[in-house]
Amino acid sequence: MDANPILAETTRGNWVENRHRGAYVVIDADGRIIASAGDIERPVFPRSAIKSIQALAIFARHADEQFHHSAEELALACASHTGEDRHVSVASGLLSRLGLSEADLECGAHQPIDAAARATLRAQGAKPSNLHNACSGKHAGMLSVARAMGVPTAGYAGREHAVQQQVRAVIEAVIGEPVNEAKCGTDGCSIPTYAAPLRAFAQGFARMATGHGLSAELATAATRLFDAATTHPHLVAGTGRPDNLIMAAFNGRVMQKYGADGVQCGAIRDKGWGYALKCDDGSIPASLAMIASLLLEIAEPDAGQRTVLEGFAHQPIKSVRGDRVGEMRAVVR
Amino acid sequence: MDANPILAETTRGNWVENRHRGAYVVIDADGRIIASAGDIERPVFPRSAIKSIQALAIFARHADEQFHHSAEELALACASHTGEDRHVSVASGLLSRLGLSEADLECGAHQPIDAAARATLRAQGAKPSNLHNACSGKHAGMLSVARAMGVPTAGYAGREHAVQQQVRAVIEAVIGEPVNEAKCGTDGCSIPTYAAPLRAFAQGFARMATGHGLSAELATAATRLFDAATTHPHLVAGTGRPDNLIMAAFNGRVMQKYGADGVQCGAIRDKGWGYALKCDDGSIPASLAMIASLLLEIAEPDAGQRTVLEGFAHQPIKSVRGDRVGEMRAVVR
Repeated sequence: MDANPILAETTRGNWVENRHRGAYVVIDADGRIIASAGDIERPVFPRSAIKSIQALAIFARHADEQFHHSAEELALACASHTGEDRHVSVASGLLSRLGLSEADLECGAHQPIDAAARATLRAQGAKPSNLHNACSGKHAGMLSVARAMGVPTAGYAGREHAVQQQVRAVIEAVIGEPVNEAKCGTDGCSIPTYAAPLRAFAQGFARMATGHGLSAELATAATRLFDAATTHPHLVAGTGRPDNLIMAAFNGRVMQKYGADGVQCGAIRDKGWGYALKCDDGSIPASLAMIASLLLEIAEPDAGQRTVLEGFAHQPIKSVRGDRVGEMRAVVR
Repeated sequence: MDANPILAETTRGNWVENRHRGAYVVIDADGRIIASAGDIERPVFPRSAIKSIQALAIFARHADEQFHHSAEELALACASHTGEDRHVSVASGLLSRLGLSEADLECGAHQPIDAAARATLRAQGAKPSNLHNACSGKHAGMLSVARAMGVPTAGYAGREHAVQQQVRAVIEAVIGEPVNEAKCGTDGCSIPTYAAPLRAFAQGFARMATGHGLSAELATAATRLFDAATTHPHLVAGTGRPDNLIMAAFNGRVMQKYGADGVQCGAIRDKGWGYALKCDDGSIPASLAMIASLLLEIAEPDAGQRTVLEGFAHQPIKSVRGDRVGEMRAVVR
């Protein structure tokens, strides 16, 4: 297997310490490649970077007509959130309307990613619940699909369950190729994740951004999801998180979502381009430097957007005492 | 620059998710290479992996004769510890004999790495001190060098200070080549770290293990340090930490020390071999899988040692709910 190019590196003093390889592609809905590096046909797990594609199942099964998801609930369905009060309340609100509760979520409980939310829980002597899981909004959305389908909710996270079969079907419809059990893993939140080429995921995001290549129903649903996510980026990510700050800066022009283990997916909506990127070694900070540098190159940022992206393309590395001793930096050309 | 080989990878389900490249060398004191992979001449920062070499400065300036360092204090000088009570008390004990205190340490304060120690501090409403810093034992040892040299202790962490010049001199004596400002960075604990080839660090560890190529004084000092570290591995690492468990299992035969950003150095003492390894992307878990696999191959482990190493060569990856969904595994051949 050929090595992908080095797309980010860290420095310490005057010497490079670490090197991060990866691949990316920017593509339009018709498959015309705008930019790429590395092997974009090697199947990779998209993890949470395609939550907006997975959320199309809500519309494919008309759960939206039955349960009238708010824009906030749709944004949270696309989210890897930080477990702040607003995230928890939006997720629990949808569950209530479904006649379900936190106990029906199959994502598992972990401490909130947000430090203040963690401190609050600790001060209360409370343990985190499934609602604090970064994926609770996606899971609540999947439970709404189960309700709309009239199937048992228990076991909805399993790959044989009708809900996950429906999610798989919308993924295949959007990325334009089948996924299968031969390249399947279980995500951190216990739902299946299917490996496919970066090129296919990027083209899926271009289709979501433009509607080209999608059914009219999926095209409308994609617009609603991207509108919801870019209007409520705090719900998609959380306080201070890169996806939140990037989407807020671009004011609707850019859909941006990271995934665990160094995946970045999104779309430059006004250009009709989708993109997908994977850092080979799974580093999230390195993948962030890479995607920020790529957006600097291709998204025609204004001064404010440029400032946000530059901060991620060059991330300081500090000593325990707080001195700047190096940086993580993109080397995307 | 040629790509180093893939030496570790993570799986999820039935597919490889992440790949980690790196280089390593196993060598004897005369420079005969036993095994190697990748570019072993590319200079890398050794970080905390060479604390036992840095600690030779204690003997080079006869601080040991003046302050009678215990074996525990010598082990802690080689340590990246977890801030448990015993680590804190050994470091503060030496500081007291030097007529110094926690406030004289220039490493900075961070939360103890050990979860129980963190919880205890939190329950007390106490903030971590410089003594909880993983490097406090090394810093206390450096303060003993300053005292023995009769120089001001303030600023001892700076690269122009006489203490760091002495530390640099013992590094050069042991690895057999000069280091310099052209490849110098500041470590997390604020002391300088100099990049040099893996081959040189590995040969330095072989010299430490055998005394070959060292002055009689340094050879004796090296034996005292390796004996101290391998007799008190909990002080070098902490509860449950890989370096502790590996050294304890090998009962004196193996000196093993990790460094931040994916470095692993050590020696198989009875064979007279030193080794050094760097994961290109800085992943500590990946570098651990790599070194465990290497030790399985070359260290002639017995059944108990093999069990310990296998656990690091194949590390489970779990979902939030605790299900095993993949593994980090070495692919060192």
